[in-house]
Formats: sequence, structure tokens, C-alpha cells
Amino acid sequence: MNTDKVGTYPFVAEPFHVDFTGRLTMGVLGNHLLNCAGFHAEERGFGMKRVNDSHYTWVLSRLAVELERMPRQYEKFSIETWVENVYRLFTDRNFAILDEAGNPLGYARSVWAMIDMETRKPADLIALHGEGLSAYICADKPCPIGKPGRIKVKNGEVAGRHRAQYSDIDVNGHVNSIKYIEHILDLFPMEMFRTKRIRRFEMAYSAESYYGDTLTFCREQTGDDAYDIEVKRDTDEVACRSKVIFD
Amino acid sequence: MNTDKVGTYPFVAEPFHVDFTGRLTMGVLGNHLLNCAGFHAEERGFGMKRVNDSHYTWVLSRLAVELERMPRQYEKFSIETWVENVYRLFTDRNFAILDEAGNPLGYARSVWAMIDMETRKPADLIALHGEGLSAYICADKPCPIGKPGRIKVKNGEVAGRHRAQYSDIDVNGHVNSIKYIEHILDLFPMEMFRTKRIRRFEMAYSAESYYGDTLTFCREQTGDDAYDIEVKRDTDEVACRSKVIFD
Repeated sequence: MNTDKVGTYPFVAEPFHVDFTGRLTMGVLGNHLLNCAGFHAEERGFGMKRVNDSHYTWVLSRLAVELERMPRQYEKFSIETWVENVYRLFTDRNFAILDEAGNPLGYARSVWAMIDMETRKPADLIALHGEGLSAYICADKPCPIGKPGRIKVKNGEVAGRHRAQYSDIDVNGHVNSIKYIEHILDLFPMEMFRTKRIRRFEMAYSAESYYGDTLTFCREQTGDDAYDIEVKRDTDEVACRSKVIFD
Repeated sequence: MNTDKVGTYPFVAEPFHVDFTGRLTMGVLGNHLLNCAGFHAEERGFGMKRVNDSHYTWVLSRLAVELERMPRQYEKFSIETWVENVYRLFTDRNFAILDEAGNPLGYARSVWAMIDMETRKPADLIALHGEGLSAYICADKPCPIGKPGRIKVKNGEVAGRHRAQYSDIDVNGHVNSIKYIEHILDLFPMEMFRTKRIRRFEMAYSAESYYGDTLTFCREQTGDDAYDIEVKRDTDEVACRSKVIFD
């Protein structure tokens, strides 16, 4: 059992994980962040495998990433992660993305719930894991970016549609959290990524979608370089919402 | 400089890298194989960065993967890679995919060319890197799977279309080799992956495609569980061909 509050994991920006500008893609960074969350929790006794044994599962509710810059192709970087807080229904986990010298490239915040695998109802984190989780709370480590906020799309226009395919589906039979990120960024033209970079990116996950679902992506411009996106299933149920701020 | 002929690289099947059956996806395995090729070549003085300095670049021409089974979620595995042969215009690089105990899960073969970055014409590998590459030839290590063959699609039916988007494009401005694999496997219904597994998978890359290209996927069934796929650009030019054999 690892007793360090902060976990640190090394990475390198692989050639097929960078976009046409030679920078790591947001989807790949998101995947690394979620893996680090998994490693950190597993090493400390409250990881996915452990909670699955008790018929619970961790569910990612929100993610916010804010970056000075993305790692470049072949660049070594590392991700630190720690638990900031534990509440009854949610826990906040933060991240720092560091260059090889240990300087911050950016930060991320995530919010997780635990649900009962059968009833799909939220579990009481304090009752179930209060002791285990609390031992790792690291409230004083700075994460100087805003918390993930509430995203509302009022006057969105349909910017794209996507039918969920084999490659979208994870081991739970749901469209995987990372694929939403890729599909959302694919709504923007190449020119956007050529002239600007993503400064802040947020995801709020609401409901699962499934193989064969046609996802509709509604986008609303909320500022010069800011966009809110709502992803709906055929049933009109919201699967997730996202905020993208370019710079 | 590493003088071992065989390079070995450790991996773990990450949660977002497995499909709904809990097995590593072919796209992710392909990415790992190509990364291992890169690591092995880089450590031995003939990697992408080194050849780019001389205005050449490595181009993947063919890939064949044959597996007893795919690694399961969270399973540790490793990939060995070595150079089997060097010819004037091509070099053969092989791979073994091993479980944690070192038993083979499968093998892969790849064929690479080197091209001049400006003229895009093939380079003479023997003249340019004969000495460096030949020192690492390891012709006696077994790779007990068939070589990638010639794929011809005569009576294909259009099985899908895809417009190349931001997430498809690599640092060279081309649709990335791994994305073709994902799009090709997305032509098959979920049911296929539920009831069967991919025993052998081949890719033959012909021409680059670009952002905005509409790719047309023609598929021909060539046996009970065997399919040939041809991917064409709007211009009717063939971007790549693939063979998928289920089991």
C-alpha cells in the first residue's frame, strides 16, 4: 500500500497521440488523467478493482483541464494526482501536468461519484470509504484553475451527429468517456486548431449512451473563443456537456 | 547505443484501450507495435528523429498481426521487436506479443520503406543504412505467421464512408495509420466481435489521405469469416487495403 498522498506517473507524447500541430491531443491527455486516477486509487486500496469486488463502481462526473501548453511529440512529461476532498456523494481529485523539469504545463480537476453496480444509485462515500479516502486528502496542494462549472446550452445549433460504433464502446457497454472528447473536438474545423489552442476544456457526464445510439452535438458560441456543447442521445436524453475555450 | 538485436517493451492493457469484450483493441495494439518499432530503431541509431535529420522518413508499408488471444483489461504484456531483413527498398521488422510469463499471445510482421521527405521517392536502404541496419538483423528468431500478402478487392460493396476529421490527422497532416484500423473495424457489427475474435489482421498502406477527404470503404467477403477491405479517397485513389480474418 502506497502511503504518499500524491501519485506521480511519467509519460511521453507518442507519435500517434499528437495532432497535426505536433501537440498531444486532449483525448489522449484525458485518457492519461483517468489512468493516473486509477493507478493512484488502486495503489491506495480504493481503486476500481477493489470497489468492484464490493459491487460498486467509480463514475467520472466532471473533468476540467486548463493548460499553458500541451506536451510536444516525443516530449517527456509527468502527471501528479491527489484527492482534494471527500463529500458524501462526490470526491474531488486534482491533477498537475508537469514538464520534464517539473514545471507545470497545466492542471486538471475531476469530480467522481461511486454507484452501486446493480441499482446504479449513488453510494455514500463517507460511510463506505470515508476512512480510507480521508487518509489521503491533500487539501493544501495548489490546483490554480477554476472548478468545473455548470454548463447550459440554451440556443445550440446542431454541429454534428455520430452513430456510436464498435470503437466507441468500453468494457461496460457504454460510449467511453474519452471518445466523447474526440467527437466534440471533431466539431471544430482544422483551421481552429491551426490558429488557436485549447486553453480550457470541460466535460460534465450525465447519462450513458450505447452502441447504435445516434449522438447529436449541439453547439453554442458563448464568447469570442468559447463554446458550450451538449451531446444528446436519440431519446433526447443528455449524455454529456462540454465547454471549450480557445486562446 | 543499445546493441541487443531484440528490444522488449512492457505494457498494460489500460481500461480505455479495451473494447466491450474487455480485450485490447487492434488499433491500440497497432499503436504499441509502431511505438516499439520507433523505440527499437531510435535506441539503435536509425530512428525517425535521426533519419528526419537527413531529410528521410520511415514509412509503414504493411502490417500483419496474428493472435491466439488479445491481452485482457489490466493484463501486463510485453512486445519484442527485431529486424528480420534489410533489402534495397524495404526492411522487414517482426514482433512477438508475450503474456506476463513470456508466453506468446501472437506475432506481427511489418514492412517499412524509407522515403526522401522532399521528393517522396523511396531511398536505397542498403546504400544509406545498410551497415547500421545489418548489424541488427536477427533472421533466426522465429515469427511463425504468414507474411503480409497482396490484397485485391474485386467485387467490394460500399460498407461505409468517413470524412477525415481533426482527430484523424497526424503530425504530418495525413490520416494516421492507426485511425484506418479503427475505421475499418467499425465497419463490422457489434455482434461480430461478441461472437468471434480477430485471428489475423493485415494492413497495406498505399497513399496518404488528408483532412476533409471522404474515405469510402469497400468490403468483399472472401471466406466464411474473411473480409478484404479497400479504402479509397474521393479521387478514387486507394489509400489502403486490409484483410480481416475472424475465428
